[in-house]
Amino acid sequence: MSLRSLGMELHCRCIQTESRPIGCHIEKVELIPANSHCEETEIIATLKKTGQQVCLDPEAPWVKKVIERIMANRKR
Amino acid sequence: MSLRSLGMELHCRCIQTESRPIGCHIEKVELIPANSHCEETEIIATLKKTGQQVCLDPEAPWVKKVIERIMANRKR
Repeated sequence: MSLRSLGMELHCRCIQTESRPIGCHIEKVELIPANSHCEETEIIATLKKTGQQVCLDPEAPWVKKVIERIMANRKR
Repeated sequence: MSLRSLGMELHCRCIQTESRPIGCHIEKVELIPANSHCEETEIIATLKKTGQQVCLDPEAPWVKKVIERIMANRKR
């Protein structure tokens, strides 16, 4: 069993982040807290329909709003 | 390619949620917004070391704080 299969990455996963507000296309969001292998929080969204994964910027206001909306269980 | 492989579930994934504040054991967190197959937001945390997946209650104050802390990129 590899470290990767345990969900542990040995480096940051995101190279660039999506700047367009794509909140309505998001199927689910993965939050990866800063850890010994990556010093920044990483947010990886999986898109509806395509299943494509895109990185989001944790500092972007629209990303914070998307997370807040999900947590509040509000639908768009 | 199945719907499941696209990350789409046809029902809610969580049956019960973890009540103990396990924030420091969390490797990553998956947020699944309410959708046509599950009317509530689901939060699934993957634990460090074991890789075990546990469901968290989006309404629990400690869970909200964990998400806020991750978003703010603050380490414990």
